Amino acid sequence: MLPVPRNIHVNTKGAVILSEESPETRDSRGIYLPNHIEPVSYIAVDIGGSLAKVAYFTRSPEPPSSPSIAATRGTSSPESLDSDASSVPQTPGATLAPELAPRLRSHGALTPLVLESQQATHIHAGGHFNLDNDYLLNSIMRRTTQHFPGGSLNFERFETDNIDECVAFIQDLIERSARTNCVSIEDMRKGVRITATGGGAHKFHELFSGELGVEVHGEDEMECLIEGLKFITLIPDEVYYFSDELIQSVSHPTKPPHAAAAAAANGQVLERPSPDPPQYAVTFERNPSTQLPCLLVNIGSGVSIIKVDEDGGFERVSGTSLGGGTLWGLLSLLTPATNFDEMLAFSEKGDNATVDMLVGDIYGQDYGRLGLKSTTIASSFGKVFKKNGEKTTFSPEDISRSLLYAISNNIGQIAYMNAEKYGLDRIYFGGCFIRGHPATITTLSYAIRFWSKGTKRALFLRHEGFLGTVGAWIKNIKPPESEEAESLLSLSQQ
Amino acid sequence: MLPVPRNIHVNTKGAVILSEESPETRDSRGIYLPNHIEPVSYIAVDIGGSLAKVAYFTRSPEPPSSPSIAATRGTSSPESLDSDASSVPQTPGATLAPELAPRLRSHGALTPLVLESQQATHIHAGGHFNLDNDYLLNSIMRRTTQHFPGGSLNFERFETDNIDECVAFIQDLIERSARTNCVSIEDMRKGVRITATGGGAHKFHELFSGELGVEVHGEDEMECLIEGLKFITLIPDEVYYFSDELIQSVSHPTKPPHAAAAAAANGQVLERPSPDPPQYAVTFERNPSTQLPCLLVNIGSGVSIIKVDEDGGFERVSGTSLGGGTLWGLLSLLTPATNFDEMLAFSEKGDNATVDMLVGDIYGQDYGRLGLKSTTIASSFGKVFKKNGEKTTFSPEDISRSLLYAISNNIGQIAYMNAEKYGLDRIYFGGCFIRGHPATITTLSYAIRFWSKGTKRALFLRHEGFLGTVGAWIKNIKPPESEEAESLLSLSQQ
Repeated sequence: MLPVPRNIHVNTKGAVILSEESPETRDSRGIYLPNHIEPVSYIAVDIGGSLAKVAYFTRSPEPPSSPSIAATRGTSSPESLDSDASSVPQTPGATLAPELAPRLRSHGALTPLVLESQQATHIHAGGHFNLDNDYLLNSIMRRTTQHFPGGSLNFERFETDNIDECVAFIQDLIERSARTNCVSIEDMRKGVRITATGGGAHKFHELFSGELGVEVHGEDEMECLIEGLKFITLIPDEVYYFSDELIQSVSHPTKPPHAAAAAAANGQVLERPSPDPPQYAVTFERNPSTQLPCLLVNIGSGVSIIKVDEDGGFERVSGTSLGGGTLWGLLSLLTPATNFDEMLAFSEKGDNATVDMLVGDIYGQDYGRLGLKSTTIASSFGKVFKKNGEKTTFSPEDISRSLLYAISNNIGQIAYMNAEKYGLDRIYFGGCFIRGHPATITTLSYAIRFWSKGTKRALFLRHEGFLGTVGAWIKNIKPPESEEAESLLSLSQQ
Repeated sequence: MLPVPRNIHVNTKGAVILSEESPETRDSRGIYLPNHIEPVSYIAVDIGGSLAKVAYFTRSPEPPSSPSIAATRGTSSPESLDSDASSVPQTPGATLAPELAPRLRSHGALTPLVLESQQATHIHAGGHFNLDNDYLLNSIMRRTTQHFPGGSLNFERFETDNIDECVAFIQDLIERSARTNCVSIEDMRKGVRITATGGGAHKFHELFSGELGVEVHGEDEMECLIEGLKFITLIPDEVYYFSDELIQSVSHPTKPPHAAAAAAANGQVLERPSPDPPQYAVTFERNPSTQLPCLLVNIGSGVSIIKVDEDGGFERVSGTSLGGGTLWGLLSLLTPATNFDEMLAFSEKGDNATVDMLVGDIYGQDYGRLGLKSTTIASSFGKVFKKNGEKTTFSPEDISRSLLYAISNNIGQIAYMNAEKYGLDRIYFGGCFIRGHPATITTLSYAIRFWSKGTKRALFLRHEGFLGTVGAWIKNIKPPESEEAESLLSLSQQ
């Protein structure tokens, strides 16, 4: 067994989220960790029902590009969330980046373990070098890189249906790292360790270990989610939420101030959730601290609701099968959209009132006694069915808007009820469904605000879809207590 | 003001539910009330987002047809719920009665108020009659009918889109009653009083009072629902539920006994909800008693969740826009079905596993640590969306089965959470969505059983869609305290 110093913990001091390269990498920006050293190349893979996500660390003495200034601005309008939060207005097309366009990035290389062990050998050899100049130069270069802490945690996303692309990406990463570090592919492989989590970890275990020829071990999905949440919430400007400050006419200068929103700001009754709730300013958490206990609502194809205790213990307490897969599945049947972003773009231009049955459609007015306004949705898609069997055509925009709202609001409602049940005030929403999409985030956030009467808060994450992946990376680095003790024992026996 | 004895309460002693005329009248069977006297003709109308429902009382000294024997059998398999619960197996076509077929029934006539007031006049006149023989004969006949208690509470359903049909039905009922009782239409109208409730009560108020020329007054929808629940739960064999007794191979002799169901019967862990949960025997409540406090989940186009206290006080505590309207609306877009029953028939023949993403699809196996079996639905419709934009065709049967389950289970889950929050063990499901459909009832019932670990019970009602209508009828008869006191005062001043 190689003397791997496995008791490394990740140092998050000075961590910054790197700037966005394009709108589609919004949630997969690198995280620069200036104080982290990773002598072994840990690659984490989280294979979900729809997406496979990869995280890996590459060393560099300096951040690969300037840290995002925008990310630290503090507040912004929800509209800017899925862009770089820069002040440059985005064209609608910019959010329509094709899901399948080649977008694989090369963020430096992994560091081969062989350097670490060679270095150890050199030290043990006590200066009895017998090397040519080239080798010496290389060695010095390597040692410099070796001992300089800092580098980036990088993220990639693949479709589970195209899992081979994911395998090929890791294969390429390993090969490129071998070339960059001038080591053989065999030596390179020895220093790579893959942790696989998510639903597909077991299913694809043999594919990964067989194709890549590296060590692959599995980690429990829920444990990784929680581990990932604990880590990611320590990164400055990662967590964001809607503050209590209302945006009146900031983002829509032509719109009059929202009367109901103004009322809410004055401590009055909040209007009921709708696809057009009051707009609050977004705040990024610049000085993060431990956020436990909390509720984690992970929205992927389905939804898992996990109660996390103060000591990090956790339990999956609830969930719903009405998740991202339901929305995308139904919309792919009901609209001509062929990818997520087209569906989201449709939803932004739609009017749900053409398909939803509103309180006003039934009552002809508000149902004041119950606090139901005429615009409150009584029945999602309630206007569609015609008893005479007549089939009417509805616009993809209206259908998308209605369904996105219905699914998001239902998740928000179930999340709130669980938070209330367990007395938790912080509700993190993670998972690939969210996609930084303003309507989704606003709906989830407002559902929590409304149902909890402002006592509970919905919290969102820039790397919302990578919690399990980050957790698998962390778990790889930080072994279980017993294993850690064993490692230390091995080292002391050297 | 006519001296109307308004402080009549409905005597439910000896009440029986009349036999079913056809499958489509399953939920609108008459209720024979042998001890009820109704001198004024109260017609109740509950106008919802999709359906308008009517209830009215017609006198008859004997039940119009033999009371349902089947209804009092005590237990049956869930499959027999939407039939007459008779032992004659139904052909699938029998449950496919077209929604729009003419099915208006003539259940006798209303009693005109004029008889009551004439009778009073005769008594006051002290025998100074000046009548021809025909009139005397009529009068005696009438008096006989007049004083014989007993009659049927009758129910009719119309589509809100065709509200004119509903108006025409009531018009015809009034005209027929005038002819039968040999009184003028004007006199007949004086004795008819309509109570309107539901979302459309306000919207259609003028239509009803204008077209019918009778007094129409509105009652609050929620109050009527609760009043209706309190009354209807006093009718023997009205309430039914799934007992703890498992049906093993009774209804499906070819199926092996359900292993998980057997486990549950032995007090072991219940398997997670699915479209194919363990089957329990149905029990009808033969000796009903007051069932408060309870939770009432009224599923119409949308869903209202109402907490009812022990003293009858109530509050709408929750709800969801994902209700009957959502299911019918989406299915009318996604399948060729043109009415409810076609959709339900589709769902009975479908396999949700073709559209739903199951735990096994993601994990390749059970996720035992979380108690998630491989057949558990991780994501409803999660298999539909293909990232490569490819559009696949799915069968209407599979789509219907998946969506019916998803919507029903979601309602069951939200209902359970509210029942838990308010510490209520009895959860009544009412509203037109249910339609006595086995899959819906089984799903709702099992969701409550699973989430509450068997501590709470879902209760269903034969007249599930008529709670508000019955409540409006009762409220018409039983005036508010203050009004009642006023009425008594008026009488004493005669």
